[in-house]
Amino acid sequence: MQALIFDGNEAVFQAHRPDPTPPPGEALIRPLRMGVCSTDLELCRGYMRFRGVLGHEFVGVVEKVTGPKGQNLIGKRVVGQINCVCGRCDMCLGGLREHCRQRTVLGILDRDGCFASRFVLPVVNLLEVPDSVDDDHAVFTEPLAAAYQILRQLTIEGRPYVTVLGDGRLGLLCAQVMTQLNATVRLVGKHPEKLALCEKWGVKHRLLDDVGLRQDQDIVVDCTGSASGLKVAMQMVRPRGKIVMKTTVAPQAAGSEIVDLSPLVIHEIQVIGSRCGPFPDALHALAAGKIDVLSLISRRMKLADGVEALRVARQRDVIKVLLEP
Amino acid sequence: MQALIFDGNEAVFQAHRPDPTPPPGEALIRPLRMGVCSTDLELCRGYMRFRGVLGHEFVGVVEKVTGPKGQNLIGKRVVGQINCVCGRCDMCLGGLREHCRQRTVLGILDRDGCFASRFVLPVVNLLEVPDSVDDDHAVFTEPLAAAYQILRQLTIEGRPYVTVLGDGRLGLLCAQVMTQLNATVRLVGKHPEKLALCEKWGVKHRLLDDVGLRQDQDIVVDCTGSASGLKVAMQMVRPRGKIVMKTTVAPQAAGSEIVDLSPLVIHEIQVIGSRCGPFPDALHALAAGKIDVLSLISRRMKLADGVEALRVARQRDVIKVLLEP
Repeated sequence: MQALIFDGNEAVFQAHRPDPTPPPGEALIRPLRMGVCSTDLELCRGYMRFRGVLGHEFVGVVEKVTGPKGQNLIGKRVVGQINCVCGRCDMCLGGLREHCRQRTVLGILDRDGCFASRFVLPVVNLLEVPDSVDDDHAVFTEPLAAAYQILRQLTIEGRPYVTVLGDGRLGLLCAQVMTQLNATVRLVGKHPEKLALCEKWGVKHRLLDDVGLRQDQDIVVDCTGSASGLKVAMQMVRPRGKIVMKTTVAPQAAGSEIVDLSPLVIHEIQVIGSRCGPFPDALHALAAGKIDVLSLISRRMKLADGVEALRVARQRDVIKVLLEP
Repeated sequence: MQALIFDGNEAVFQAHRPDPTPPPGEALIRPLRMGVCSTDLELCRGYMRFRGVLGHEFVGVVEKVTGPKGQNLIGKRVVGQINCVCGRCDMCLGGLREHCRQRTVLGILDRDGCFASRFVLPVVNLLEVPDSVDDDHAVFTEPLAAAYQILRQLTIEGRPYVTVLGDGRLGLLCAQVMTQLNATVRLVGKHPEKLALCEKWGVKHRLLDDVGLRQDQDIVVDCTGSASGLKVAMQMVRPRGKIVMKTTVAPQAAGSEIVDLSPLVIHEIQVIGSRCGPFPDALHALAAGKIDVLSLISRRMKLADGVEALRVARQRDVIKVLLEP
C-alpha cells in the first residue's frame, strides 16, 4: 500500500509498504478523505518524537474486522476517535479513558496513522457516519470534536466576552462552536482572508494588530499553535479569567522564547488545557448543518503528493488541505 | 525615619528618610514586626521593576488617621491588606477589588512598603488584631491569607491527593492550611530540616528526590518560587488535575529555562494562578491556634540590619526572618 511517513528527519512518501493486519478487536479501514492538521506539521518538527505513518483525521470504509464485535460495521463509512486505550489502568477505570496511561494515539503516539491506503483502529473507537453527512464534512469530525471539548470544560455564566485567538484551521472551527454559547464571541487573527469567513457566519472578527490588549476578555481560547499565543492571551484575558489552551507547540520550535508566566499568578488567571473531544457532538453538529466546514477546504491533493501537501498546509493563506487516496 | 529600600540596583538602608504623611482616608502606621517574603527577594532581582521602600508583611500600631473614618483605630494594633484600590474601575465594581486596574500594592507596586519606622495604608485595608493574637503570630497574617486563598479557588470533592511542592516559607503555611481539607496532603521539598517540621504537625512529607513523578496527584500547589516548579508539578499531577501556582519568579532570573507547556494540553491540566487571600480567615485561624507559625521563625533582626536580613533570608536553611524596629 501507499503511506506518508515521518522517518525522524523528514516526511517521506512510500509507494510500497505492507498492509497492516488488524489485531483482535480492531478494524482495517480504507480512508476516503484525510485531513492535514497542525499537529502533523509539529510532528514533522520533532514533536512527540513520533516515527511512522502520519495522520489522524479521516473518514473511511471498514474492510475487515478481527473478532466478533463490529462485524456489522464492515462496508460502512466510519470516523474514529484517535486515542486507543487499555481499559484497565487507573485512568480508564476512573472515567478518563482519553488519558489512559498505556494509550497509543493514531498517527501521534506509538501507532501508525491514517495517511495510508489502509490502517487499523479499535472497533470501539469507530462511529458510523450517517448518510446525511458526506465525506467532505465527515473528515472534519475529529478537529470539530476538539472544538466541542471546550464546551465540556467551561461553565458559561452571565454572557461572557470570549476571544478565539488564531484564525487557522482549529480557530475557525472553535469560533463557530463558541458562537453557540450565550456569549459575545470574536475571532482575532492575523489573516484578513481567513477572518473574512466570519462575515458569512455572523461571527465578530478583528485583526490582532487592531485589538487593544486590555485584559478585558472573560475567556480566551488560544488556537494560535504558537508559543507566543499564551503571552498574548495573558494580555487579553481579565483578572480571574480563563485561558483555554487548545494547541501544542514543539518546545524546540524556532523562535521559542521564555514566556513570563507571572501574570498567571498576579491576575489569578486559570489556564485550562484542552485536547480531544466528543465525536458524537461533532458528528451531530455536522449532520444538523450547524458548522460550515466546506469553506475551510483550501486544497484537495492525492496521498501520493503527501509530502507536497504538508508543505502546502504550512502556507500562510491555506486553511485545510484534504488528502484523497 | 529609617527605611529599607530597593534603589533599582540593590537594597539600601536609609537612616534618615522623611516620615510619610497619610493622604485622606489613609493611616500612618508604626510597625512592630515585619516579615521578609520571597517576593521581597524577587523584587531585589528586578521583579515588577519596583523602586522604593520594601516590605508588605507587618503588624503595627495606628498612630494617625487622615479623615473621619478609622479614628477609632488610633492606638490599635492592626494588620493590613496590601492591595490599595480605586473603588471605581470595572474590576472594583465587578467584585474583583484585589485586581483593581489602578491599584497600588504595599512595597510591591507604586507604593512604599512597611520596612520603615512609619508607613501609610488606606484605613479600609486595616483589620484590628485581637489581643489573643500576639505580634509574632499577627505578622504572619498576610502570607497565611495567601495560603487560605487556595481554599477559595478549589472545589474539593472525593478526598483528593494533594501535594504542596516547596518547603519554604509559603509551602510550610500552605501545607498546614491544606490539611484542614478532606484530602490526603503531603509536602514535598528539598530540605530535610524544614520537612521535619511536618512531623509535629502530623503532615506527610517526602524529599523531592524520593518521590516518583507518576502523574497521580489530583492537586499540586506550586510554592517553589522557582521556574522549574511548574515543570515538576506537571509531572506530578494526574491528567485533568489541577496545579495551583502560588509564587512568581522574575523572568530574567538566573537559570531560567524554556518550560515545555505542551503537557498542559496533552493531559488537559488546569493551572490556577493564586495571589492574595482573605485576611479574616487567616486572623481567625491564628486566633484559634490552628496554625503553627512560631516554628517558622528562623531569625529576628533589626530593621537597621535589613540589608543583611535579606541576605540571610536567601539562605538554604532559613525559613522566616522577622524584622523589628
